[in-house]
Amino acid sequence: MPKFLNREIISYLKMKATHIEHIGIAVKNLEESIKYYENILGFKCYSVEEVKDQKVKTAFFKVGQTKIELLESTDSEGPISKFIEKKGEGIHHLAFAVEDLSETLPEVESKGIQLIDKAPRKGAEGLSIAFLHPKSTFGVLTELCEDKN
Amino acid sequence: MPKFLNREIISYLKMKATHIEHIGIAVKNLEESIKYYENILGFKCYSVEEVKDQKVKTAFFKVGQTKIELLESTDSEGPISKFIEKKGEGIHHLAFAVEDLSETLPEVESKGIQLIDKAPRKGAEGLSIAFLHPKSTFGVLTELCEDKN
Repeated sequence: MPKFLNREIISYLKMKATHIEHIGIAVKNLEESIKYYENILGFKCYSVEEVKDQKVKTAFFKVGQTKIELLESTDSEGPISKFIEKKGEGIHHLAFAVEDLSETLPEVESKGIQLIDKAPRKGAEGLSIAFLHPKSTFGVLTELCEDKN
Repeated sequence: MPKFLNREIISYLKMKATHIEHIGIAVKNLEESIKYYENILGFKCYSVEEVKDQKVKTAFFKVGQTKIELLESTDSEGPISKFIEKKGEGIHHLAFAVEDLSETLPEVESKGIQLIDKAPRKGAEGLSIAFLHPKSTFGVLTELCEDKN
């Protein structure tokens, strides 16, 4: 049983996510899916960016406080290709904005959550990011982001 | 080719989603997953509600402008059970807040999007809701919500 299920540890809780920073969506074709988000839902794509170490091309939209990040794989062996192969196109991850990622990660790990990234690394839009493993977050690939800009 | 890919129709666009109303997440066990969202991410569950015609029990959290809606099936033949069987626990749908759902639905349909609900119906928290089919929204089961309260 993960440690966080133990009510006694609640009092040690420090982490507070302030809002949903973005929702990552895996798509096969960035250009076609941008048209859907622009022409049907009425959002404006404000940035297209390649993140080489993730093997993706991304497109960003702002929807109120939250961004939508469309992800197209640039490599058939990349994580987004693998995801689409297994589950089809769709929502890939959920990202929460936090205030101090370097402090948050060891705290979360100490409560029994499996980290994909033990230390913050650089993500799209210059954010400092880290992923939690979906095995310990009830199936949701969860990203924590800190905006140091 | 869906009609929305035709650039000529852009000028007819009326719909504008103002923000992400909620993110629906399919879970096997509502009680255990509530503990994760409360004790790790630091959110407070403010409501647990059963939606009988959807065969689910739901739990709500507020995260900035957006809600997280956890969904546990109350019936092994219900849509959430089927989803988990096929894809595992995880993000199930994405809901956008719109201003006039009755006007929006025929507009969206006229642009080639397949509707699951041809007319608004009542969802959790008393919202007026309708779903768009993931086949025409690049794999994302998409809900449109209007708050008439």
